[in-house]
Amino acid sequence: MPALSKATRTLACVTALTLAPLATAHMDEKEPLQSYRQSYFALLAANFGPLGAMAQGDMPWNDEMVQLFAADLQSVSSLNLMRGFAEGSERGTTRAKPEIWENLNDFEAKLQDMRDAVDGLSAVAASGDREQIAQQIGAVGQACKACHDDYKSKDYLY
Amino acid sequence: MPALSKATRTLACVTALTLAPLATAHMDEKEPLQSYRQSYFALLAANFGPLGAMAQGDMPWNDEMVQLFAADLQSVSSLNLMRGFAEGSERGTTRAKPEIWENLNDFEAKLQDMRDAVDGLSAVAASGDREQIAQQIGAVGQACKACHDDYKSKDYLY
Repeated sequence: MPALSKATRTLACVTALTLAPLATAHMDEKEPLQSYRQSYFALLAANFGPLGAMAQGDMPWNDEMVQLFAADLQSVSSLNLMRGFAEGSERGTTRAKPEIWENLNDFEAKLQDMRDAVDGLSAVAASGDREQIAQQIGAVGQACKACHDDYKSKDYLY
Repeated sequence: MPALSKATRTLACVTALTLAPLATAHMDEKEPLQSYRQSYFALLAANFGPLGAMAQGDMPWNDEMVQLFAADLQSVSSLNLMRGFAEGSERGTTRAKPEIWENLNDFEAKLQDMRDAVDGLSAVAASGDREQIAQQIGAVGQACKACHDDYKSKDYLY
């Protein structure tokens, strides 16, 4: 198993140590790392969902919303996701496959692909070029799928 | 009840319409708006928790982590929170008091106070001035508390 960076491991410990007492909404006290990463993906999906729907014609196109969602998508994607995948979080209420921890370098490379695609979308979101924007939204979706195909279970694992 | 902006209302509808099919982790299909705002607060707390602990001496001070957490705190705080408080989300699995929707202008003003305090923290996070940083962390905590005092229930409301 590739080693997580020291910073990531430290952050993970910090998460586990300090989140429980806060008893935040949706932050399971017994599974703070799982809750952390699930919150990350929930906010990612909250912004990508309507972008994908607009790109595919399932929702009316709206330039203002495209820009708002693309901006928030970038803010969310930039967050330190890997603290949520630190050692000790392999099990629990999760759809993260064990293969993630066996291929951490590949997992992180796919994460970077997603961030790069999101940055590419941000670069064109205000251009008004609907075709180009839709193409970039598609690239983000492909980056999501590439990782899900290998590392996301359809069902929760316990 | 003060009216939500058109953009916020539209975004809220978009959230409700498009999140359910994604079936994201921790995104309750029946309560996408509640899940959205709870994910926001979970990630906010994931970064503020250790900052508060360091400022209060409950965790060893670490300049690198202060900067990482402050940066992510700012990214999260900037997200469009109000789409999660749109009409129709007053009930459900939530600790959001009904008073929020009776005082939306005040609620949004307190949200802005928090964002301002977070920006103030970001401005000094890399300064190396531990006393000043701790003071700004305290200001963020006070902004959180000011809103929680009025608008956050201790127990879940159904």
